Amino acid sequence: MKAIDVGLAGSLFEQLDRATRQGRGIVRDSYGAGEQAAHDIMRAAAERIGLEVSVDAIGNLMMTLPGKDRRAPRILVGSHLDSSPQGGNFDGAAGVVAGVCALAALRAAGFAAPYDIAVMAIRAEESSWFDVSYLGSSGALGLLDPRCLSVRRSDNRRTLEETLLERGFDPAAIRERRPQIAPVDIRAYVELHIEQGPRLVAEGLPAAVVTGIRGCKRFRNARCVGEYGHSGALPRALRHDAVAATVAFLHEMESVWLRAEEAGGDLLVTTGELYTDPAAHAPSKVAGETRFVLDLRSLSEDLMEAVAAEAARVAARVGDKYGVAFDLGAATDSPAAIMDPRLRSCLMGLLERPLEMASGAGHDAAVFARAGIPTAMIFVRNEHGSHNPRETMTLEDFAVGTRAMVGLLEQFPL
Amino acid sequence: MKAIDVGLAGSLFEQLDRATRQGRGIVRDSYGAGEQAAHDIMRAAAERIGLEVSVDAIGNLMMTLPGKDRRAPRILVGSHLDSSPQGGNFDGAAGVVAGVCALAALRAAGFAAPYDIAVMAIRAEESSWFDVSYLGSSGALGLLDPRCLSVRRSDNRRTLEETLLERGFDPAAIRERRPQIAPVDIRAYVELHIEQGPRLVAEGLPAAVVTGIRGCKRFRNARCVGEYGHSGALPRALRHDAVAATVAFLHEMESVWLRAEEAGGDLLVTTGELYTDPAAHAPSKVAGETRFVLDLRSLSEDLMEAVAAEAARVAARVGDKYGVAFDLGAATDSPAAIMDPRLRSCLMGLLERPLEMASGAGHDAAVFARAGIPTAMIFVRNEHGSHNPRETMTLEDFAVGTRAMVGLLEQFPL
Repeated sequence: MKAIDVGLAGSLFEQLDRATRQGRGIVRDSYGAGEQAAHDIMRAAAERIGLEVSVDAIGNLMMTLPGKDRRAPRILVGSHLDSSPQGGNFDGAAGVVAGVCALAALRAAGFAAPYDIAVMAIRAEESSWFDVSYLGSSGALGLLDPRCLSVRRSDNRRTLEETLLERGFDPAAIRERRPQIAPVDIRAYVELHIEQGPRLVAEGLPAAVVTGIRGCKRFRNARCVGEYGHSGALPRALRHDAVAATVAFLHEMESVWLRAEEAGGDLLVTTGELYTDPAAHAPSKVAGETRFVLDLRSLSEDLMEAVAAEAARVAARVGDKYGVAFDLGAATDSPAAIMDPRLRSCLMGLLERPLEMASGAGHDAAVFARAGIPTAMIFVRNEHGSHNPRETMTLEDFAVGTRAMVGLLEQFPL
Repeated sequence: MKAIDVGLAGSLFEQLDRATRQGRGIVRDSYGAGEQAAHDIMRAAAERIGLEVSVDAIGNLMMTLPGKDRRAPRILVGSHLDSSPQGGNFDGAAGVVAGVCALAALRAAGFAAPYDIAVMAIRAEESSWFDVSYLGSSGALGLLDPRCLSVRRSDNRRTLEETLLERGFDPAAIRERRPQIAPVDIRAYVELHIEQGPRLVAEGLPAAVVTGIRGCKRFRNARCVGEYGHSGALPRALRHDAVAATVAFLHEMESVWLRAEEAGGDLLVTTGELYTDPAAHAPSKVAGETRFVLDLRSLSEDLMEAVAAEAARVAARVGDKYGVAFDLGAATDSPAAIMDPRLRSCLMGLLERPLEMASGAGHDAAVFARAGIPTAMIFVRNEHGSHNPRETMTLEDFAVGTRAMVGLLEQFPL
């Protein structure tokens, strides 16, 4: 297996940090000066290594190790270079640095690639700047709704169209839904990313293979409507207590979750917002209303459907029992994206202590997988979560993940 | 049994309504023009009936049917004449009108009272104007903390002291904690009041005998602190989910309540406020914090103590299980007030369809009972709750309650 140049990785992370840290956190604003600085650093590194460099119409940077057959479908290795506001140095960038280090290792070892392998530094993955999911990767595949051109950046209120023009890119590519690269020309997409949950820290493992990116079915505006009353005067039987009913509902949903887990299902059930009405509630009142969110995550669309149907049944039953009315409201759906089984098993064979896990957060990999492209992801251990200045990934763990990536690239065609 | 002059009652309620309705609701502001108008109406009615009339130093109106022994301890019949802002016509006033109608009935029948029976129209029971509990009744017994003189009225910001002086009353009585009437001079206190819950409507009964006024032990500032995290990435075992833990805690507290009820205990358990932090919660986050109220009500101090101790144990156990920390905070205590057993059983014997029930809301009767005075309360059926313009009591139901009051007065000494 080819050796990873950890010194190169360390130097690139340090350059990125120096160029884009503002106060405590990292600011690589999508299509802004911070993201561009990161692109400039990666481009210069790719040129030093001898990779071919090009930029597509919407600003994605391609750094290519040419293969024998230049017209055959290529392998993409990538991630994004933007960050969330006051984010960390590794979310996104780790995958681009890994790609460059992987190609450097292959090139240094005189690896003869049968076809092109390109590192794609993707634009604008974070939706905190422009409220559009996966701008760069979706745009590259010609999948963006052209109306997104009028979405404004959250801070300076410039539209995406104005911003693209200012950077010298071409909004017409989005307006005309013009793909920069066709799915048939992509043999596979491989992304390394820091894990955003605490699982690898808890497991004591440096890296893992991702099974898929969980879909999300979210009841954003769930309500329970009962009747306000005097907490000292209303006997239990005459109450229409929205808090008691919501507690009973959520308690049953936890049981639904436990049963699904026992049956081996991949499921997360979360209520992250729950509140009585501050304009009407009082310590001496039985609550007449609650509002809450019910967020379901799974790799399985079927399981999310089944749990949503069960939630409706539980809500009806609990509503009857407590004399209240639940209205779960409309659900928003974000489909799951399953990673390619052959790429997964190849990666598992390359890890010394192999572990597979689902990704809860979204990634550009989801865009490629949903477009039918065989896709794989490698997670690298990271402390303190992501989207904050405390992201922590060691170069040792990074090297473990990148070595697996190199091993996978060497084994093509699978 | 003496007949109740329903025409007199109807006329008094109508005069009160006409004089104190402002827009949709009734406004008899404590120590304000509305309350004074009600006092004037009741005083005039008492004088027409031939009762002796006097006003104490803090404005309570006494309307007395003289007895044979004028120096023997007297019976007080009373309630308050103020209302909540935009309140209803019956909360408070029903008890004063009942007293006047009862004495009118006794006088008309030539009843020879062995000792004085006085209707006490009590000032300022509602704490919505001055944030002091039971101003008039506590002041009459010399029980007020003199610092209350500097409490300001919620609307015009005048202090209680200024307000008393403006009405021609004597703040020195409060400053010197001077009782207007000593507990030893009160043989019994009897109060008729509309029921503020829906129980009598649900039971289809016109009136009930009150067993006691529930005490309240309230954890006003309970918190559960966990850790925020990504709702799609955090597996169940690694969560510190404040909502899930709070749901489990409140669910167990409902079981505690059910068990207490099955054992025959008088108990109400209410969480009327419950909320995640709007500055930190999000649909895609596991909640790191909740705040809630736990409000316990009972006639039994022992039961409230036991349930509070159980709540602490449940909080510790659930906190361990979910990896969160509960802090129930300090409890505020308002003691229960038990009605006199002999007066209760006498009243029960006077009702055609007798029912006993606890009062959840507070009443002046609690002040007299806690001062050691034998106290009784009669509840009259009322639709739509209290403290709102939709209070509804029929004169038929009022007559049932008032007849029981007359019956009780006739039977003294018990």
